[in-house]
Amino acid sequence: MKKNYVAGVDIGGQTAKIGIVDRKGNILARKVISTKYKEADKFITLLSDAIKELTVDIGLDNLNGIGVGAPDGNYYTGDIVEPTNLMWAKGKTIHFANELSKKLSGMRVIVTNDANAAAIGEMKYGAAKGMKDFIVITLGTGVGSGIVVDGRLVNGHDGHAGELGHTCAVKNGRECPCGQKGCLETYCSATGVARTAVEMLEKTNTPSLLRKVKDITSKDVFDAAEKGDKLAIKIFEYTGKIMGEKFADFIPFTAPEAIILFGGLTHARKYFMEQLVDSMNENVVFLWKGKVKVLVSALNESDAAILGASALAW
Amino acid sequence: MKKNYVAGVDIGGQTAKIGIVDRKGNILARKVISTKYKEADKFITLLSDAIKELTVDIGLDNLNGIGVGAPDGNYYTGDIVEPTNLMWAKGKTIHFANELSKKLSGMRVIVTNDANAAAIGEMKYGAAKGMKDFIVITLGTGVGSGIVVDGRLVNGHDGHAGELGHTCAVKNGRECPCGQKGCLETYCSATGVARTAVEMLEKTNTPSLLRKVKDITSKDVFDAAEKGDKLAIKIFEYTGKIMGEKFADFIPFTAPEAIILFGGLTHARKYFMEQLVDSMNENVVFLWKGKVKVLVSALNESDAAILGASALAW
Repeated sequence: MKKNYVAGVDIGGQTAKIGIVDRKGNILARKVISTKYKEADKFITLLSDAIKELTVDIGLDNLNGIGVGAPDGNYYTGDIVEPTNLMWAKGKTIHFANELSKKLSGMRVIVTNDANAAAIGEMKYGAAKGMKDFIVITLGTGVGSGIVVDGRLVNGHDGHAGELGHTCAVKNGRECPCGQKGCLETYCSATGVARTAVEMLEKTNTPSLLRKVKDITSKDVFDAAEKGDKLAIKIFEYTGKIMGEKFADFIPFTAPEAIILFGGLTHARKYFMEQLVDSMNENVVFLWKGKVKVLVSALNESDAAILGASALAW
Repeated sequence: MKKNYVAGVDIGGQTAKIGIVDRKGNILARKVISTKYKEADKFITLLSDAIKELTVDIGLDNLNGIGVGAPDGNYYTGDIVEPTNLMWAKGKTIHFANELSKKLSGMRVIVTNDANAAAIGEMKYGAAKGMKDFIVITLGTGVGSGIVVDGRLVNGHDGHAGELGHTCAVKNGRECPCGQKGCLETYCSATGVARTAVEMLEKTNTPSLLRKVKDITSKDVFDAAEKGDKLAIKIFEYTGKIMGEKFADFIPFTAPEAIILFGGLTHARKYFMEQLVDSMNENVVFLWKGKVKVLVSALNESDAAILGASALAW
């Protein structure tokens, strides 16, 4: 049988989503497995088994290759390097492409970080279709980014380019798990929103539904906002303001046509988008005031990452 | 005669430097003309005359093309767009490539911004030889930047990419001629150094040779530092610290192998380099601590810009 299919794998802190994809970007079969294992080898074995099963299920003998998007995945080396959200790789370098390939009779495996995979997905099939210069910002547990310049993904000298979640949003600001202070990620990720909630509840006496919630998550803040809770809405507005200030600093770098938001937090966009765009345009140098679009991913979230990862494998 | 020569033109606030360059990067003839004219047409006429003269002087019939590096030069359109330091273009868009070409019988003219020209010069002939990912920061009257990703200059969606001088170094900081506050340029350019001097003299009682100087320039600060003036040295150290903090924010974007400093202020590097590197490594996320080189241009300053501009024309 002709090899006209690849697998796209999107690895996250909770689950890995696997899809078998054809050249047109149709996902023919899917499977989700947990990533919550302590041993890398255990996870890689289960992943390779799942890929084999899916391949057989849809009557294929073989695949053209496998593309993987993973936190701190490195395109040049195929390694996953010290991610904070994957138990089996925490503080370690996992030779992921190599190990997975071994378990699949030497099949070609290409790795990149999850935000880069999302950027490729958006470019080929989503909101960035037809664009040559754009930035995808992933707003999930952390903040990641995939940068495209002149139609090509920016990998950088060492393959780690696009760590915009770890640029400084607030000088001497919140402690980040990365060891620095004030990283964008500590304000504008799901966990950042939760931290803002805790801070605002402590610092003000504003009545809020959130005062009754233990261990506040960004979902709690969203639910409260949906019920008209003013403090919850203020939390998102603050998040948008910080994002906009930082986007104003990103734009002069690569002069993107658009910045595309991706990930769980975009569900709350109606509560932060206006503040984001206003503060971006207020803070950016005159050349780009009112000129850079802020869009939201046009793809189903897990699809974009699967499709982006799969595109690596062609 | 075979057309194996191009002209490289480096346009600055005071002068334009013109060179006739062969394929190996040898500058065969040079000329410097003033840029201090009020009418764009006047300057462009004098420039085209100078290029014609140089061509005849070295016995050539014609050139292969002309590459121009200019403040706010746009690679895509060939325009010079609202530069702050060129009298004949202030607040205007000059169709520079078009106009110059007209005066030279339709010869091909390629324009880019001066920092981009410097980056190309460094890549082909200077400190970035052999590198594929680096950033050139020009420290002159202003702060400019040329960004190279995977061996290619980043122009961005609109041709204006690389305005890192107008990213925010200090929130609500110094007023910048661009209209924003706290731009890197207001701290780390020659004028920024002079502003720091004025501020430090006002805020402290530290004795300093600079207290006797009227209308302090960065050259005065350098001269004082050379005489061991402690305040002058402190001014450069502060400049280095701010630069390092901001470089720490640039690195996660394109993961460069090196950041290369270029321009007049690099003469004072012994007074700010240590602080720059320390603050860069202190503030950058762990992936790049101690890993990104900070180099100084290996080319004669005017040569790099002429050579870089000329390289556009091949």
